[in-house]
Amino acid sequence: MTVTAARGFLASGVAAGIKASGDPDLALVVNQGPAPAAAGVFTSNRVQAAPVRWSRRVLADGGVRAVVLNSGGANACTGAAGADDARAMAERTAAAVGLAPDAVAVCSTGLIGVPLPMDRITAGIALAAERLASDGGEDAAVAIKTTDSVHKTAVVSRSGWTVGGMAKGAGMLAPGLATMLVVLTTDAVADGPRLDTALRAAVRTTFDRVDSDGCMSTNDTVLLLASGASGVTPADGELAEAVHSVCLDLARQLIADAEGASKEIEVAVVGAASEEDAVTVGRSVARNNLLKCALHGEDPNWGRVLSAIGTTDAAFDPDRLDVAINGVWVCRDGAAGEPREKADMSGRRITVTVDLRAGDASAEIWTNDLTAAYVHENSAYSS
Amino acid sequence: MTVTAARGFLASGVAAGIKASGDPDLALVVNQGPAPAAAGVFTSNRVQAAPVRWSRRVLADGGVRAVVLNSGGANACTGAAGADDARAMAERTAAAVGLAPDAVAVCSTGLIGVPLPMDRITAGIALAAERLASDGGEDAAVAIKTTDSVHKTAVVSRSGWTVGGMAKGAGMLAPGLATMLVVLTTDAVADGPRLDTALRAAVRTTFDRVDSDGCMSTNDTVLLLASGASGVTPADGELAEAVHSVCLDLARQLIADAEGASKEIEVAVVGAASEEDAVTVGRSVARNNLLKCALHGEDPNWGRVLSAIGTTDAAFDPDRLDVAINGVWVCRDGAAGEPREKADMSGRRITVTVDLRAGDASAEIWTNDLTAAYVHENSAYSS
Repeated sequence: MTVTAARGFLASGVAAGIKASGDPDLALVVNQGPAPAAAGVFTSNRVQAAPVRWSRRVLADGGVRAVVLNSGGANACTGAAGADDARAMAERTAAAVGLAPDAVAVCSTGLIGVPLPMDRITAGIALAAERLASDGGEDAAVAIKTTDSVHKTAVVSRSGWTVGGMAKGAGMLAPGLATMLVVLTTDAVADGPRLDTALRAAVRTTFDRVDSDGCMSTNDTVLLLASGASGVTPADGELAEAVHSVCLDLARQLIADAEGASKEIEVAVVGAASEEDAVTVGRSVARNNLLKCALHGEDPNWGRVLSAIGTTDAAFDPDRLDVAINGVWVCRDGAAGEPREKADMSGRRITVTVDLRAGDASAEIWTNDLTAAYVHENSAYSS
Repeated sequence: MTVTAARGFLASGVAAGIKASGDPDLALVVNQGPAPAAAGVFTSNRVQAAPVRWSRRVLADGGVRAVVLNSGGANACTGAAGADDARAMAERTAAAVGLAPDAVAVCSTGLIGVPLPMDRITAGIALAAERLASDGGEDAAVAIKTTDSVHKTAVVSRSGWTVGGMAKGAGMLAPGLATMLVVLTTDAVADGPRLDTALRAAVRTTFDRVDSDGCMSTNDTVLLLASGASGVTPADGELAEAVHSVCLDLARQLIADAEGASKEIEVAVVGAASEEDAVTVGRSVARNNLLKCALHGEDPNWGRVLSAIGTTDAAFDPDRLDVAINGVWVCRDGAAGEPREKADMSGRRITVTVDLRAGDASAEIWTNDLTAAYVHENSAYSS
């Protein structure tokens, strides 16, 4: 049910012919109210796709009630024509569902630098509008896939209200969001500022902690729409917890489906002087290609972990660093600890724990191993 | 001839049995004067190997006249015992060649976190001291190889004086030096401060611009020894130019021999508001795994270049970025430019030119593509 798990939403997904494969590639989500509100978070990349520029603007105006999404083309680095195309997608969606253009956010994903086939998109929007349904969430989630092997959805239900969502993304996942599009919906009653607060808090410790390959996209967008259809106004903490829970679930699905990966790696940094230090160290470890190769080879190469920590400006003493791999403290006091053979790395999940012994703050970063399959997937064709 | 191209130096390289393969793994370089002086630059990684800590200290004291180097073990993250081992290497070398321990710099390279086999190293130092010769430079260059496929040397001769050197390194090359050991020698007359100025200037625009895989080592060391044996005192500019020339030659050899690489990539950033901006953008592009995969696949994917530029805080307007691949301006004004098919990427060398159109500064960063062979080499065994 995903984006249609919460009451007050219609969705659809269709094959508009944007993808050469003929797979579904265009989705709509429409908020029917009665108390519509929206919030959004976008890529921090300074090179931003036309739909990101459009959506950022209309979201600031406060009246977003629908989202049109396409896969098969990012509409990024497409110049003035690309801006016109993003606006046209909003206008045609608005006309088809009876809204103003400024009420429609636009999300695109796919190859950068290639114009969208607007004739097919126009026809696709008309078809998707006809197909809008209160159980259309799965179709929408399928239509936003690119290299994703599965579509990704999550739902949590609380007393009388629900938060649900869909995500696409399978690599190019990095801070300030990832190559990912996420639409969350809730039937809770909440205005824009409350949604914004809950969404930013959730994104900061979920999607922003996903760092599959250190690359940040031009198109990343996370939207949260509230309909108010449940009639329930949850407390701020309740709303934040539910949104966080759905974001965490989707973020883990993104890492589990990263392009060409064979391991899901959690870098847990503890004992940091600050959360910022913990995140900095976690990212440095998660982005170290040599370590990512070693973990792929099931080699508990803690020296590469220390080498990555050493490139940061976080507070630590090099002679007091501890590192565990899957719970075995293979490095103590910056030197060899327990026998590395004790670390069982045969499973798909690997946890690298770094104890900076400099304070009480902590953070987790999720990443993947570096594999020949990743290289193949990202070198054999444009993506 | 390498480190023995300049007069006043002896060198040797022997197989001490540190490497299981039985290949040469221990080298000595001795400065015979008559006017010995030295300078050095070390890794900026905060996790520093014991030999780096030792060499940094004795170099500051100003009396370094010999270098002992080993491959087969990095002596990094080895605790107090590792510090003792680095000191012992200096002491045994000093005794064998008739110097004080503080006159001997120590360099190690190989696996992190494993103690050195000091009995073999002790015997190897004795053997290497016996073999010291005025034509021993090649043997020394061979003995410091790890995963290098070739040994690396360079020499430039000026009127009556010479600068020569050797380097090891084949991947894990990143700013603040690389996993590399470099020893340069000259028979010019120059004191420590002059050598230091020339060496830092050269390293800044050569080894520090090499970024094969974004990973910075714990052991990187570049040493420059002057004997004064030519009797010639070059002007500051002449000395700096010759040292730069040798460093540039060796840096390009490092990139050409990077582990598992199939392309040598120059990222040339022009039109930057400052050299710092140019370096920042160059590094961001050079470290983008998605782009490195695309270039491996000979895909002129300029969208990934823009995406990498967009993650920096350099001065630029996203709608005024130009990108050329091998001289074809595939991106103009932040959007598609000349047809991408025009870019011939079949050769081993690829140049990615970024014009930020924000000023007159420029910088080049050299990197490699990301290949399945790189993944294999760094996952199939500890390194």
